[in-house]
Amino acid sequence: MKKKKIILMRHGESKWNKLNKFTGWQDIGLTKNGKKEAKLAAKLIKKNNFIFDIAYTSILKRAIYTLWIILKKTNQIWIPVYKSWKLNERNYGALEGLNKEKIKKKYGDEQVQLWRRSFTVCPPNLNISNKYHPIYDIKYKKLKKHELPTSESLEMTFNRVIPFWEFKILPQLEKNKNILIVAHGNSLRALIKYLGNISDSDIIDLDISTGKPLVYEFSNTNKPLKYYYL
Amino acid sequence: MKKKKIILMRHGESKWNKLNKFTGWQDIGLTKNGKKEAKLAAKLIKKNNFIFDIAYTSILKRAIYTLWIILKKTNQIWIPVYKSWKLNERNYGALEGLNKEKIKKKYGDEQVQLWRRSFTVCPPNLNISNKYHPIYDIKYKKLKKHELPTSESLEMTFNRVIPFWEFKILPQLEKNKNILIVAHGNSLRALIKYLGNISDSDIIDLDISTGKPLVYEFSNTNKPLKYYYL
Repeated sequence: MKKKKIILMRHGESKWNKLNKFTGWQDIGLTKNGKKEAKLAAKLIKKNNFIFDIAYTSILKRAIYTLWIILKKTNQIWIPVYKSWKLNERNYGALEGLNKEKIKKKYGDEQVQLWRRSFTVCPPNLNISNKYHPIYDIKYKKLKKHELPTSESLEMTFNRVIPFWEFKILPQLEKNKNILIVAHGNSLRALIKYLGNISDSDIIDLDISTGKPLVYEFSNTNKPLKYYYL
Repeated sequence: MKKKKIILMRHGESKWNKLNKFTGWQDIGLTKNGKKEAKLAAKLIKKNNFIFDIAYTSILKRAIYTLWIILKKTNQIWIPVYKSWKLNERNYGALEGLNKEKIKKKYGDEQVQLWRRSFTVCPPNLNISNKYHPIYDIKYKKLKKHELPTSESLEMTFNRVIPFWEFKILPQLEKNKNILIVAHGNSLRALIKYLGNISDSDIIDLDISTGKPLVYEFSNTNKPLKYYYL
């Protein structure tokens, strides 16, 4: 029986990935290498004859540009694209804009690993006076103040990504649509945790490469089966 | 009282605009000059502080790329974009892919002017054996055969553009959304005819420049008032 497959992909390398900074909700563009990663991903997708009916992405430019490159290079720019902040990277709170190595020196490797990879630990909150606070970003002006995160654990990210999956994306999978999702390290970790029922402790070890298409296979009754890089 | 304004724009110059060919539903990319026109349009839009809540375009790449350039250069790539074949260029039937000058020599200026500019005259139909027939294009595979035009008069274009305006775009104007529409010569002529209640004979004289933002002003009760290039 033919399996259903969707493609999940983390955006290509961003300028802050390269500078080793916590990025989160900061809207940072791709590096040259990031664009190249997206083009290579497009080639792989084309070679494997993936034709999409619909695509989902965040409202952050590193994901949107990655998606645009894939759609352009696979000649599918005309398909519907839905962008939502629910697929944004995790909000890294007061860590956004800071260098990961410097933070490790200040707080220790273990604390930083917990902030980065654990399910429940939340980085320190963004203060309202911090220029990186989402209240100053036009993209979020329609959200109510209580909806605007000032820091998120992976669990909090999970709690916005999974309802988006359940109510927006899954119904399309149920209609046998071919789906492409271009998102972020932690919004995808949240989704993969949910689909694979990965435990809170095991999720610590899951990292997702930039710019590599990941196939997620589902049964004909839409049960998640397994995933692998293309 | 502050007026409501939307921006209508025809795509930048396409490769077939440059070759003076009837393009219609053929999916032809922008020329270098077309991309430059889009960048200049973006500059004007930025200078005039237009910030959009939502954008509409066709499913043809010359319109989508024009829109992408505008969104990129005005830092608004995150806004929702709806693409619909209802905003496509008029289907030019058996004229698609043919040189306008050659067609004039064969059929005479008057006939070509009627095909290009009149409201009711329909070019000859595309034959099913013609490679340009939309039945061979993956973009239209979900449309029923009777929905697929094999040639359209401006009136037939009008009859798909106006319901899209009424049911999809106008409700957003009524919600005071700032709207950008990037479409085609004839889908925009149809819309402008409707909004300005232009007669079937007067519409013959209306041509729309490629890549120039056109402001359409509405009253606070959403009555169309006037339009002008930015």
